[in-house]
Amino acid sequence: MNSTMLSSTKIESPWGSRADREAERQIKREAVLRTAARFFNAQGFHATSLEDVAAALAVTKPTIYHYFRNKDEILFECVRLGLEGIRDAACAAEDRGGTGRDRLEALMRQYAMIMTQDFGICVTRTSDDQLGEQSRLRFRELKREIHNHLQSVIKAGMADGSLGNGNARLVAFTVAGALNWIARWYRPDGEMSAETVAHSTVDTLMRGLVPQGASR
Amino acid sequence: MNSTMLSSTKIESPWGSRADREAERQIKREAVLRTAARFFNAQGFHATSLEDVAAALAVTKPTIYHYFRNKDEILFECVRLGLEGIRDAACAAEDRGGTGRDRLEALMRQYAMIMTQDFGICVTRTSDDQLGEQSRLRFRELKREIHNHLQSVIKAGMADGSLGNGNARLVAFTVAGALNWIARWYRPDGEMSAETVAHSTVDTLMRGLVPQGASR
Repeated sequence: MNSTMLSSTKIESPWGSRADREAERQIKREAVLRTAARFFNAQGFHATSLEDVAAALAVTKPTIYHYFRNKDEILFECVRLGLEGIRDAACAAEDRGGTGRDRLEALMRQYAMIMTQDFGICVTRTSDDQLGEQSRLRFRELKREIHNHLQSVIKAGMADGSLGNGNARLVAFTVAGALNWIARWYRPDGEMSAETVAHSTVDTLMRGLVPQGASR
Repeated sequence: MNSTMLSSTKIESPWGSRADREAERQIKREAVLRTAARFFNAQGFHATSLEDVAAALAVTKPTIYHYFRNKDEILFECVRLGLEGIRDAACAAEDRGGTGRDRLEALMRQYAMIMTQDFGICVTRTSDDQLGEQSRLRFRELKREIHNHLQSVIKAGMADGSLGNGNARLVAFTVAGALNWIARWYRPDGEMSAETVAHSTVDTLMRGLVPQGASR
């Protein structure tokens, strides 16, 4: 066979292009994470084995190890995706236009939606002592970043008069608590849609419990 | 020695009365629980050993076993005391006079205070999968009881007009989330007193984020 013959014969690789393969790898990797997150959320991290995850995806455990070193790394990635989703929503809200109140409302609504989803639920349900020292530090950093964005949007609203005055740091904790807690009680297969829950929670926080115009 | 001699000689027992001994036992038992709760809250359940607890109380590990079978039982008792504290506050609030709003405010304030204390912190920081099957069921029951009291006080306030209308079940989750979350971020040795935190959280929930009189 000479080189001229080789170059004139076009063979489609059944493995696809390098880019296709990388995209497929990402899809498979995320399927592992999403499946694992559902097991962690339903029955806890300790009670979940990688056999459960592999079986749910109809693959063997070594296939999982092709993507992740161990169960700890999978938990780390699930929590990271959840926290980064909230962080990105918080960043975007800080940069968009409108009053502090408009920005806070947008932020809270997205934050609430994430807390009804697989990786968001993982964030609240994972306790610090389930994570290694390094992961704990990385997550504290992300949580601090989220808290700072939230606090800064609240401060902006207090400054422009669209939000009532108060201690912005404490108000941020109250808001975060109500939103994070969604992940503890919300059931994706329950009666209420994620949108209903997000809307109601944001509305309660914005309007407060006391009716308009009542003496306080 | 005859019986007349014996009965006429009054000897103070150095062990104290049966009632004294029982009271002392209770005090010691609670000291073990409180010490253990502080370790669990500071470094996590898994990372805490009964040696840590014994050493902090200047006793040996067998002394701890005189009061509790194992570390699991100690965790159970810590969470139970925290939940029962909240449940009692919720019961008392439901039974006291005043509008729904008055009762809800009293309930939230006490609930918030408990979430700054050792056993309350344990409640939020203990994840379901750290508990055995039986404990989990017992705690779900107590949590349901607390949720029902909270929801019923909120409903009463909506009915008598002292609270704004809404879905009482969802409002109860929002309130519980903000209050439970105190246990995640509050530091007893930090700058803010428990009273300040409780007051601010209740105030934010009651008044809402949007200032009085703003269009909604």
